Amino acid sequence: MTKTPPATAAVPEQPALRVKRLGLHTQHQPVIVMHVDCHVCRSEGLSARSQVLVSSGNRSVQGTLYQVEGDGFLSLDEVGLSETAWALLQVSEGDDVRVTHPPAIQSLANVRRRIYGSRLDAGAFSDIVHDVVAGRYTEVQLAAFLTASAALPMDEAETAHLTGAMIEVGDRLQWDTPVVVDKHCVGGLPGNRTTPIVVAIVAANGLVMPKTSSRAITSPAGTADAMETLAPVDLDIAALRRVVQAEGGCVAWGGAVHLSPADDIFVRVERELDVDTEGQLIASVLSKKIAAGSTHVVIDIPVGPTAKVRSEEAAARLAGRMTAVASRFGLSATCIQTDGSQPVGKGIGPALEALDVLAVLQGVPDAPEDLHHRAAALAGAALEIGGKAERGRGTALAMETLASGRAWKKFEAICEAQGGLRVPPKAPRTHPVTAPRAGRVVHINNRKLARLAKLAGAPDAKAAGVYMDVRLGHEIDRGQPLLHIHAETPGELAYALDYAAHAGDIVEIEP
Amino acid sequence: MTKTPPATAAVPEQPALRVKRLGLHTQHQPVIVMHVDCHVCRSEGLSARSQVLVSSGNRSVQGTLYQVEGDGFLSLDEVGLSETAWALLQVSEGDDVRVTHPPAIQSLANVRRRIYGSRLDAGAFSDIVHDVVAGRYTEVQLAAFLTASAALPMDEAETAHLTGAMIEVGDRLQWDTPVVVDKHCVGGLPGNRTTPIVVAIVAANGLVMPKTSSRAITSPAGTADAMETLAPVDLDIAALRRVVQAEGGCVAWGGAVHLSPADDIFVRVERELDVDTEGQLIASVLSKKIAAGSTHVVIDIPVGPTAKVRSEEAAARLAGRMTAVASRFGLSATCIQTDGSQPVGKGIGPALEALDVLAVLQGVPDAPEDLHHRAAALAGAALEIGGKAERGRGTALAMETLASGRAWKKFEAICEAQGGLRVPPKAPRTHPVTAPRAGRVVHINNRKLARLAKLAGAPDAKAAGVYMDVRLGHEIDRGQPLLHIHAETPGELAYALDYAAHAGDIVEIEP
Repeated sequence: MTKTPPATAAVPEQPALRVKRLGLHTQHQPVIVMHVDCHVCRSEGLSARSQVLVSSGNRSVQGTLYQVEGDGFLSLDEVGLSETAWALLQVSEGDDVRVTHPPAIQSLANVRRRIYGSRLDAGAFSDIVHDVVAGRYTEVQLAAFLTASAALPMDEAETAHLTGAMIEVGDRLQWDTPVVVDKHCVGGLPGNRTTPIVVAIVAANGLVMPKTSSRAITSPAGTADAMETLAPVDLDIAALRRVVQAEGGCVAWGGAVHLSPADDIFVRVERELDVDTEGQLIASVLSKKIAAGSTHVVIDIPVGPTAKVRSEEAAARLAGRMTAVASRFGLSATCIQTDGSQPVGKGIGPALEALDVLAVLQGVPDAPEDLHHRAAALAGAALEIGGKAERGRGTALAMETLASGRAWKKFEAICEAQGGLRVPPKAPRTHPVTAPRAGRVVHINNRKLARLAKLAGAPDAKAAGVYMDVRLGHEIDRGQPLLHIHAETPGELAYALDYAAHAGDIVEIEP
Repeated sequence: MTKTPPATAAVPEQPALRVKRLGLHTQHQPVIVMHVDCHVCRSEGLSARSQVLVSSGNRSVQGTLYQVEGDGFLSLDEVGLSETAWALLQVSEGDDVRVTHPPAIQSLANVRRRIYGSRLDAGAFSDIVHDVVAGRYTEVQLAAFLTASAALPMDEAETAHLTGAMIEVGDRLQWDTPVVVDKHCVGGLPGNRTTPIVVAIVAANGLVMPKTSSRAITSPAGTADAMETLAPVDLDIAALRRVVQAEGGCVAWGGAVHLSPADDIFVRVERELDVDTEGQLIASVLSKKIAAGSTHVVIDIPVGPTAKVRSEEAAARLAGRMTAVASRFGLSATCIQTDGSQPVGKGIGPALEALDVLAVLQGVPDAPEDLHHRAAALAGAALEIGGKAERGRGTALAMETLASGRAWKKFEAICEAQGGLRVPPKAPRTHPVTAPRAGRVVHINNRKLARLAKLAGAPDAKAAGVYMDVRLGHEIDRGQPLLHIHAETPGELAYALDYAAHAGDIVEIEP
């Protein structure tokens, strides 16, 4: 609820303030800088780290205020904006602006109730998500909301309320076809980059699959990060629609089409916390599928001791919750448990994973078999629920689509439609991590591998990551490379090698 | 645990970077600004909102990086520091600095475990608190830790571990006397400013009471905020010791003596969340009492429908937990339940509460009786546990100390020793809120009153707040003032009046 301007006592007219673009990069956080001695700061009682509302015409942006002293930087009547704040306010240099306290955030009372263990109804979630998307929550308040829904996990009703609220605040796509298929992997398995392959197979068989993917949350690469090394993924809704109408499928970044703007905000904070929860996961996945206009979705749940989901029971529970919430929105979800005991393919990191994808699509002799089979199984399930294959025959059709080159041809066409096929970058620096003794590979720690790839610079450094030289069961000699670290900068290579030297047992070898 | 510098691959020597003081006020948050095109940002893979470590000699400060473009502000080899970062690093303009990734924060794994419901041991709390005090936690990570310990409340053992960890990282006082008394109010009751009166009475009777108080967390005034309008409270340890040795007591701000630096950090985030929990409350109170060298403490627990503690059962539970944790550290705690159904005294806000304190100490005819009696009861309990009065005779001795003027004389002496007695400021703007109908005052909402005083500018605006014209049971006419809002700026007065007009039933009147 937006607070109306004070009615009982007029706020005196502010003397004019002029806006100044600072060229200051603060990621998503709107930062406002004013002079310590500015008359408006004094009359409004604004101090450093106050939340303030900067208004111009009928636009406004809420941000964190910092104050500067001295006369070298800002004059008393100037309001400096960071790039994010500048983009949101859409002003020109020197325009008049007003600076006030932002309205009180009513929905924070819901967050506090949730922290103390009360469950929230649809209205409460809707209020929270609206305020979050309007930029009214500070990082601290966002962190509290996400932590509270991790500490007392959301139940099915809450998860559905959050999903609904997240759909409400975003754009929504509609398609002129009764069946729109989609797929999603709940993640936690490095290198599991089946999506581009699945989209190519499914679209090659005449189904519609408008796939939007996220960037990495806590992993070294999301599908959007990997796909971006092969083609542009920042498609707006018009571009996405054009690609799908032409080719039947796409692999676009979800953030650029604003299907779930709330999710983009939550994800950034989850990344800083390195925490993601079942409820947020389901709401994140389903809000985007529903907003994308999907009618059927195949969900890949990798299970393994160091994957995100660690037991078949946990996977079954997640599948049950996911399916139940989806059905409340008329979406048919099919969940598939897959092997999560080791990374999929050889590469971990945006470009390294893209190279695996290319190898499978192009059918090169040493293409990773596990990625090949897994993509075919998921595409097969999509072909079956989409009515393009008999029950039990989907995987065979998917394999045939790959073997015949039809999938690769479709993928090339999709990349061209998205803006042109690209060659993934190669890292200027690589360094092996070798086996300390001879033996058999008995365990691979996915979590430590993900951390290693992130220390090497992934996902921000596209070429960075880890290339696996071994798989479970391999017999190896002492000194043989277990993996190679790929990095774009010497600093990042050093951090990753340091971690590899001290983390112990990323790849476990039994003599 | 501090990560050792990478051993397996040398980080190349950085070209020199020069430090620049930006005069940028960001409250407690260390902010670092570098040029987007700086070679170190590129080679280290640093981007906006990265956490970075700036080092000079053997000092370093961790902060949030923002990046700036263009050539008007910073050159490529300059590292701009906010005032907080500047103070922590203790450098001079143009000094050489190094900028690197900060070491990984190992203790965050404990925070994540706590979010997911695992209880933590002493070692885990110690690691967390050490990293927090070293400035390694971002706001988001601090918020997650505090929210997690609100969602699954800390048990007695955890509360003791946190208390111990908070004592560990701060300074500790010792006194050459077997009995050192202290008092504390768990808060939630506007205007309950007994501390300065209690200290004066107790010290006038020869007991040692080195009182440190906090600033407001979620209330319109803490004792330190109110006392600051009467005398300086930013005493360092040497000054505090000098005041107590001379006068037997003091009322100092705890943050300035670093008795519990972790608490100062937690409190800022709690304030932004408007959340405080029993475990944090107990650890906050007891860590400071124990670090101050107290042997006995009287704890005031106001109980009322809109106070922080709402029932006698809840008060008894809190008292039980507080006493049990205190005893683990050899501290004897005496908890006293008091009436929390309405504000204490007439003023709410730093200066307005200080004026009530002065009225009681000086024995002026219209001094607030409730504040007088409450302070005497708490001082009486302290006199009894400190051995200066027989059991049951403490309150009478306290009353006599006030009536005789001995308490006022002692208070004047303490203020002079702290740096000089001050006259509390008066707000330039006051405005009444009047009764919408005639009748009897049957309920006063403490929480809404606190919010009203905060909207008026308290505690940052010292003179701002609320002055109560009525109490429970008063018979009033339509149009008669219920309270006056005091503000320092027209904007804040308008916000407060707007809230008073729309919040409904801050003071409930029954015809």
